[in-house]
Amino acid sequence: MSSYIDKLNWRYATKSFDTSKKISEENLQILKEAMRLSASSYGLQPYKIFIIENSDLRNKLKAAAYNQPQITDASQLIVFAGKTDVTAQDVTEYMENISAVRNIPLEALQGFSDAINGAVVTRTQEAKAIWTAKQCYIALGNLLSAAAHLNIDTCPMEGFNAAAFDEILGLKEQCLATAVIATIGYRSEEDQTQHYAKVRKSHENLFTTL
Amino acid sequence: MSSYIDKLNWRYATKSFDTSKKISEENLQILKEAMRLSASSYGLQPYKIFIIENSDLRNKLKAAAYNQPQITDASQLIVFAGKTDVTAQDVTEYMENISAVRNIPLEALQGFSDAINGAVVTRTQEAKAIWTAKQCYIALGNLLSAAAHLNIDTCPMEGFNAAAFDEILGLKEQCLATAVIATIGYRSEEDQTQHYAKVRKSHENLFTTL
Repeated sequence: MSSYIDKLNWRYATKSFDTSKKISEENLQILKEAMRLSASSYGLQPYKIFIIENSDLRNKLKAAAYNQPQITDASQLIVFAGKTDVTAQDVTEYMENISAVRNIPLEALQGFSDAINGAVVTRTQEAKAIWTAKQCYIALGNLLSAAAHLNIDTCPMEGFNAAAFDEILGLKEQCLATAVIATIGYRSEEDQTQHYAKVRKSHENLFTTL
Repeated sequence: MSSYIDKLNWRYATKSFDTSKKISEENLQILKEAMRLSASSYGLQPYKIFIIENSDLRNKLKAAAYNQPQITDASQLIVFAGKTDVTAQDVTEYMENISAVRNIPLEALQGFSDAINGAVVTRTQEAKAIWTAKQCYIALGNLLSAAAHLNIDTCPMEGFNAAAFDEILGLKEQCLATAVIATIGYRSEEDQTQHYAKVRKSHENLFTTL
């Protein structure tokens, strides 16, 4: 159908990584840029992304993720952490960034600023945390697609103790909470799951055209 | 840095679509396949995706989306609707699909089935709805990336009345709820926002390497 689709078909949730293969610095920069360019609501990017290489830290996190080997065996572990609060200060910093990048006065952004403050900042903290977590999933999607394009393997993971991750990474003090994680690297030749046929809903079961 | 990143830089949240340009059937099939191949937790794909072309329907939905012109002017409107419940029946259907595609007996999938039933089906309905909505955001990310690759414009949107969308589309009866939407098509030459410099957090503000 297209080479793009071929890449998506090549991708699978890698269960076993080749511990001897590391992602090159050049490719890591491309993956970071793909995540950085991800869309987010209002463009607010209400999250931080942790790229974890340290072995001791990964061993601790592995214990908080049902001892799944990908956590330590992959080239890197990526932790998407959503902001647990979105404040007027976050909106102000965003407006300052827009003002600087586009060389326009802050006053010209008052309407946009008011809109975000009215629609997001006024929400309950719980609603804000759910919303920021959702934005993380767009960046996750972008990471998986970009990696596949580079023939880099990935395993998106929800099977971890989020509270333990937050504790180990000291996220609470940073007003962040782990939303979702992914391991990135290169599949082990011995990972048999790479040979499994991909299972997806049929077009008929997934799509409705109206 | 790479042609892939060039495509992501080309992408922007299109505010004004060219009403005369429609996505070809071939490209629409690629976009659908990109969404269908999206990763989801356990591979469960707990959502439906509506591809809306009908004018009358889009006019009604536009009124429920602050009259944003993209809803009617884009080539198609995509509605990602998460399941409001995830039941043992959903898990059974998924296992039957795996069994058929991989030609393995259902009994061999008992452990996997038990894991999903134990971890997901037992959650509160509210937790399940939040979880299925998050999965929709991965598919949204995939759609945006795939479209950019084909030089197709997109506008991901959260600015709509979800309850009104659910009502207009009759989603509640299908145990679905609108999670997020996107319009797809081709930018109008007159859309000035296409010329705005892209604003993103700096690498320093977004990433932490540990």
